[in-house]
Amino acid sequence: MIRDLALSEVYKHIEPGPVVLLTTAWKGRANVMAMSWHMMMEFNPPLIACIVSGANHSFEALRKTGECVIAIPTVELAPLVVKIGNVSGADVDKFETLGIASKPAGVVSAPLLTDCCVNLECRIADTAFVRKYNLFVLEVVKGWIDRAKRNPKTIHHKGFGAFTVDGETLRLKSKKP
Amino acid sequence: MIRDLALSEVYKHIEPGPVVLLTTAWKGRANVMAMSWHMMMEFNPPLIACIVSGANHSFEALRKTGECVIAIPTVELAPLVVKIGNVSGADVDKFETLGIASKPAGVVSAPLLTDCCVNLECRIADTAFVRKYNLFVLEVVKGWIDRAKRNPKTIHHKGFGAFTVDGETLRLKSKKP
Repeated sequence: MIRDLALSEVYKHIEPGPVVLLTTAWKGRANVMAMSWHMMMEFNPPLIACIVSGANHSFEALRKTGECVIAIPTVELAPLVVKIGNVSGADVDKFETLGIASKPAGVVSAPLLTDCCVNLECRIADTAFVRKYNLFVLEVVKGWIDRAKRNPKTIHHKGFGAFTVDGETLRLKSKKP
Repeated sequence: MIRDLALSEVYKHIEPGPVVLLTTAWKGRANVMAMSWHMMMEFNPPLIACIVSGANHSFEALRKTGECVIAIPTVELAPLVVKIGNVSGADVDKFETLGIASKPAGVVSAPLLTDCCVNLECRIADTAFVRKYNLFVLEVVKGWIDRAKRNPKTIHHKGFGAFTVDGETLRLKSKKP
């Protein structure tokens, strides 16, 4: 069951640098890509920067609709993440071919991924760096979290299918958000 | 003993999203800050985007010199990372006060952190997004790695001193870098 995630809490899920999935929907068809080149830019309203290459089939859909969902997969989904990253939406309908669970989002056209622990509905906030660097500035307009997924382990890509899986959590005293 | 890290390998260390330390040197004084808002933008020559807030004492030094070092600490340095993040270079000389080990870099003015597993010497490549977002585009001009640090565990910040430590490595078949 996915529930509201406060926008002020979004950075806690993106800042650790997990692999994410980015969904789009354009001309009646949804697509999804794997992504690791993203970062927080602002706490609240949350801004996220990401690189979506023009070589990605998702580029046009994102550019044209101005909307996407950033979903955070847990380690159980790692094989699916690799499959998503190794086929192109230009060739296949990834949702159908790979059997990806999804449902409509609240405010954007791109779908939520219901097996992911966090889903962030995003709208493009700034395209000034798209032409030069394929860098999109996204504003998170709605957040979702699945609290039934207890202690979710995310994955971090090191290249060519090697992932570091989240290990223990360390808690030190700090005043910094 | 730190040795050359090929520029083509830099992304494998930044893409997983570890907490990093950013050093600068300006007017004869070095400074260091903790940073988690960064991402890869290009493989080679490697470009890294990062947010360095105007509230950080490092901002002016980075802006004025156009140079910095991005160093990747392992979990053993987590208490030091928190200390670095909770004092300002405006108030103290962090290197002296915290006893941080460093040595001169090869081509930039900012120092290398010799206890870190990876050091990346960087020059500012683009300042077009600094005014609006405090976003710097850095080019890595020289990389260093300490291969004596076997299987280094990095840390990922989740806010207020909570860090996820690297766990196991998962290796799946993938054609993607």
